Amino acid sequence: VVRVALDLMGGDHAPAAVVEGALLAVLSEPDVEVLLVGPTDVADRLIAGRDTTGRIRPVAASEVVGMDEEPARALRAKPDATVRVAARLVRDGEADAVVSTGSTGAALAAMVLTTGRLTARPALAVVIPAVAGPVVLLDAGATSESTAGHLLQHGLLGSAYAEAGGISEPRVGLLNVGAEPGKGDQLRKEAFAALSGAPLRFVGNVEGHDVALGGKADVVVTDGFTGNVVLKAIEGATARAGGGGLPVTGLLLGVGGVCVVGHGSARAEDVASCISVAARACREDLVGRIAEILGGRRAPVPS
Amino acid sequence: VVRVALDLMGGDHAPAAVVEGALLAVLSEPDVEVLLVGPTDVADRLIAGRDTTGRIRPVAASEVVGMDEEPARALRAKPDATVRVAARLVRDGEADAVVSTGSTGAALAAMVLTTGRLTARPALAVVIPAVAGPVVLLDAGATSESTAGHLLQHGLLGSAYAEAGGISEPRVGLLNVGAEPGKGDQLRKEAFAALSGAPLRFVGNVEGHDVALGGKADVVVTDGFTGNVVLKAIEGATARAGGGGLPVTGLLLGVGGVCVVGHGSARAEDVASCISVAARACREDLVGRIAEILGGRRAPVPS
Repeated sequence: VVRVALDLMGGDHAPAAVVEGALLAVLSEPDVEVLLVGPTDVADRLIAGRDTTGRIRPVAASEVVGMDEEPARALRAKPDATVRVAARLVRDGEADAVVSTGSTGAALAAMVLTTGRLTARPALAVVIPAVAGPVVLLDAGATSESTAGHLLQHGLLGSAYAEAGGISEPRVGLLNVGAEPGKGDQLRKEAFAALSGAPLRFVGNVEGHDVALGGKADVVVTDGFTGNVVLKAIEGATARAGGGGLPVTGLLLGVGGVCVVGHGSARAEDVASCISVAARACREDLVGRIAEILGGRRAPVPS
Repeated sequence: VVRVALDLMGGDHAPAAVVEGALLAVLSEPDVEVLLVGPTDVADRLIAGRDTTGRIRPVAASEVVGMDEEPARALRAKPDATVRVAARLVRDGEADAVVSTGSTGAALAAMVLTTGRLTARPALAVVIPAVAGPVVLLDAGATSESTAGHLLQHGLLGSAYAEAGGISEPRVGLLNVGAEPGKGDQLRKEAFAALSGAPLRFVGNVEGHDVALGGKADVVVTDGFTGNVVLKAIEGATARAGGGGLPVTGLLLGVGGVCVVGHGSARAEDVASCISVAARACREDLVGRIAEILGGRRAPVPS
């Protein structure tokens, strides 16, 4: 059984779309239980008379972090915030994963605060269904000010994630304004040097089109500002070209538990899809495998 | 008559695709003359026996700036570089515009060096055919390290460009990771404040999807790194979704002459399209109008 702590109040269409998503998920995932974390009267009202298969139950949380709040400060001020209670359930072994379609920053802060982290700088990873195969893009928005050291950590995390997903020796590329070495701003030049010396398969610079087309790299590393804007630009361009919706499910990598963050505009099917992604990460012990791969890669300490 | 100085050696498919583009352009634009700036033996060989309508002629330039060269340094070292000779023709009144599908940085440096600039920080502007109407995105790659002051200048330039193009009181948005004020990194927070106090119609933050979908802003301001990556991501996503090629013609704004920069992968039709864009900018006296609009917007100097 996989127990998913679902943020009842996250996203533009919460709580209704969240509950509908939970109902869809338990139908399609027979081993999943959903804990609806939020005001229990709201949860009770929305599931009243519905067939929950006995695998959906409310867990009380009385506060909500808004999209316009500074995440860390809001979380400290709201110990009973839905996303914080959800993370606490994972820490206490009462749930296996957190799913939220609310603030990414709040989910990140809640996970770090309660479950700890595997690396100094966790990242939000999204998988883009590129033409030549899936591309892991990170950071898609967990960090707003980045250093070359952060980009190096993103590379290690993304590589471990891709490897845990079955890609052996994943190719890691640095998102830049040109393919040639030496391109880009100071951050990219420093990150290029750091990634060149890292225990991963660095294939050099890749460009914006390589994210949606694939073929050059399995993992594309960038700062959280650029990653967020690029992801949304790809979503917009795909919609513009009539390509339908792109899955925009993000996985927080580098925290001490599974946490899936969906788009704020998520509808019921999107919430259900986030729950499926979270359940799969739990079944495959993604966090444990990433920790193992990262641990095995640590450079030996000189004696 | 509009005389376009065309960089014969710029782009992956030069010089053949460049000459074919010139041949297409003079057929479709009866008032356009093309000066093929490059080694005259190469130009002569490629136009030999072709119908140039008498409106294509070679102009000698013996050096080329490569895509992997540091632009300013390369230009200083190569006074006879194609793009520099082309810019000099504009300065000397022998041509009305420069078109190049070579290095953007080299074109920018050549224009600044020879024709001067209207603002401290010129920008590369591209027009995205968004769902709700055209969106001017800038900077798409002229500058690699940006300050809030640069972003403010991009806003003023982009607004003047959109106004010169017939949009009255263009809406200017700042590309950011969320719509709410206060979002983003330090650069965005400072740029938000600078744009809020500027003589333009600032509509606040916009997100990645707004670039391809439009509707929120007529002009989207960002730094040259993000703009370049976002533009290419939109191109890639459009191709991925089967939406065909996007026009990727960039106009250098803020320099003392018309300069159109095409994609390095440009084929003949793309080169012809760049020539058309340049010719139109000349007919409409775009540089003069932008200078006038910017001049009218200058805050009065306290006496």
